[in-house]
Amino acid sequence: MKKYLLIPGPTPIPPRVSKAMTQPMIGHRSPEYSEILKRVFENLKYVFQTENDILVFSSSGTGGMEASIVNLLSPGDKAIALAGGAFGERFVKILKSFGVEVIPLRCEWGEVIDSKLVARELDRNRDIRAVFATLVETSTGVVSDIRSLGKICRERKTLLVVDAVSGLGVEELRTDDWGVDVVISASQKGLMTPPGLSFISISERTWEASETSRIYRFYWDFKAYREFLEKGQPPYTPPVSLVFGLDEALKMIREKGMEKVWECQKRLAQATREGVKGLDLQLLAKGSFSNGVTAIKIPENIDGLEILKRLREKYGVTLAGGQGQLKGKIFRIGHMGYIQFKDILVALGSLEKTLLSLGHRLKRGEAIRRAKEAYQRVGE
Amino acid sequence: MKKYLLIPGPTPIPPRVSKAMTQPMIGHRSPEYSEILKRVFENLKYVFQTENDILVFSSSGTGGMEASIVNLLSPGDKAIALAGGAFGERFVKILKSFGVEVIPLRCEWGEVIDSKLVARELDRNRDIRAVFATLVETSTGVVSDIRSLGKICRERKTLLVVDAVSGLGVEELRTDDWGVDVVISASQKGLMTPPGLSFISISERTWEASETSRIYRFYWDFKAYREFLEKGQPPYTPPVSLVFGLDEALKMIREKGMEKVWECQKRLAQATREGVKGLDLQLLAKGSFSNGVTAIKIPENIDGLEILKRLREKYGVTLAGGQGQLKGKIFRIGHMGYIQFKDILVALGSLEKTLLSLGHRLKRGEAIRRAKEAYQRVGE
Repeated sequence: MKKYLLIPGPTPIPPRVSKAMTQPMIGHRSPEYSEILKRVFENLKYVFQTENDILVFSSSGTGGMEASIVNLLSPGDKAIALAGGAFGERFVKILKSFGVEVIPLRCEWGEVIDSKLVARELDRNRDIRAVFATLVETSTGVVSDIRSLGKICRERKTLLVVDAVSGLGVEELRTDDWGVDVVISASQKGLMTPPGLSFISISERTWEASETSRIYRFYWDFKAYREFLEKGQPPYTPPVSLVFGLDEALKMIREKGMEKVWECQKRLAQATREGVKGLDLQLLAKGSFSNGVTAIKIPENIDGLEILKRLREKYGVTLAGGQGQLKGKIFRIGHMGYIQFKDILVALGSLEKTLLSLGHRLKRGEAIRRAKEAYQRVGE
Repeated sequence: MKKYLLIPGPTPIPPRVSKAMTQPMIGHRSPEYSEILKRVFENLKYVFQTENDILVFSSSGTGGMEASIVNLLSPGDKAIALAGGAFGERFVKILKSFGVEVIPLRCEWGEVIDSKLVARELDRNRDIRAVFATLVETSTGVVSDIRSLGKICRERKTLLVVDAVSGLGVEELRTDDWGVDVVISASQKGLMTPPGLSFISISERTWEASETSRIYRFYWDFKAYREFLEKGQPPYTPPVSLVFGLDEALKMIREKGMEKVWECQKRLAQATREGVKGLDLQLLAKGSFSNGVTAIKIPENIDGLEILKRLREKYGVTLAGGQGQLKGKIFRIGHMGYIQFKDILVALGSLEKTLLSLGHRLKRGEAIRRAKEAYQRVGE
């Protein structure tokens, strides 16, 4: 049975990227590798929309989050973390693990935290060193207003750190224009590459802050990477085959153009939301919908696990369940990276049949009709 | 031009492993992934020769080294590090980075540190919490006597941590029989998989020590992995495609059998050393030769970089240079993982022509003759 993977990461791998990963292994101290790395950094800067330095780690996105903390802060420092879902809460947890005094700003999961609350908190606590935010909260499908956070932080000379693991290459993000000091991302979502690489862009202010940070660190130490970056070589053995894949994926993005990529993702997301409404289901969020993942409430009389199981076993369609407090209450459709409108139609069609088989009432064909209409409308 | 990669990692990828990595992406919370992970853990235990828990991190081998330290020790703790080369020195550096009081035991690079020195040091300092050793010191090609270190540490109730990044799947290593508490390894050497995965096996004593360790940690925290391992799922998004590859590579090792793998690696190493002598070159080490990498002194009147450059450009053969204090003084032939005797002959033949072109005096054909003779002799 053909498989359709529509989860918010890892996302499907384009054939070009798969093929690139099978290139014969090369040494990471070779001129060939330096050449690839040079191109990868240039293209990553384009995707990040930044002139800042970018470091590539061999780790999951969580490793990148940890790196942003251990290079910036010291035990006892104060920081704000916007926690509107599981990944915002992860920032809170990591910050606490390193002895940072965290001020969590929370909201109901599925809603968005008002940037004004951040401004008020910063004005009240002048010694807050950094604000940690999540571009797209994968657990709720909500996108933050990073542009306004950037303005607020710049005006108050506070560092802004953004987890863009689920947002980079999906959602509009202008690192330099918006004044984001640190952007963290990873390979397995909008960048269409298997998991195993994390990326961090670092502003000049961040380099300065890292000079005085007093958290013990070695593997994540930014300085070790800078020294080696100047020589075109990574400090430790990098995931060479994943970098082969990333190189190809970045070429694909570059060929299409960033604006076009964002536009396509937007169309897919709008079509998905309309389709979901056509199934007579409710979206979790009321607004600030992300373009990469859509969270949908499970109707009260239906077993959510059963929906996912039937979709997987009968139709080969994999969607994601809920995380944390939303476990069993929602399911999620991932539509970032190498996903096309046809995949959305497959997911909606399979969902329609599955929901009917579970006794949910809906108007047959309505999901596909509304999705198609929305997709066309946005395209014009 | 066909390329021959004979460096001590990353090593060439077998076609079966390359192919496995191109399987369509799957979710890491899926039953399929749990199934693969279960088999991978079982086969890793076979390769590690242990019944201990094994954790898999998304990181380079250095990340695994850091993980072993931050889960075991506290700032101010005392530890011995055997530093007979660049990777032993890396242990010293990481230990210092986390505030551990390190007692480095050193020797001339290319020699081996006498286990008796460790015993003497442990008897002198009863408060030493752990001994850090390197199975194969990649920078010198020397193998440590882990069996005797295990005995010494067990008798004194000190934890023994072994960096087996360059040794696992190459050199005889019996984690449980020899009483090694922590074994760290990585995917890109004897395990014939691209870099990006590190592994740690953890004894019961290590789990206990990790309860009292007071170094700030999150990403490397063993406990987070144990909780998730019980559910058959990793805590953070794992490098799924690399795990596909590892799964296949471990199957290959299992099909051949561990003893046979060690035996083959030994034959390759002995043939390489004899071939090198036939080129009228000198080995760096005087004994304790590793089966994975051979370090060779660069003759005084020849430019080592030029040897490597000509080999690469004229014959497609990549060997490695020296590291740290051995830079410019040695070059290294890696012969671990997916390397066959024919690759060694290609390397020796190309070296002969390269050395002649640089004015080195040698007996033509002698390298190949001696390598073949040694290879046959060991095989009988």
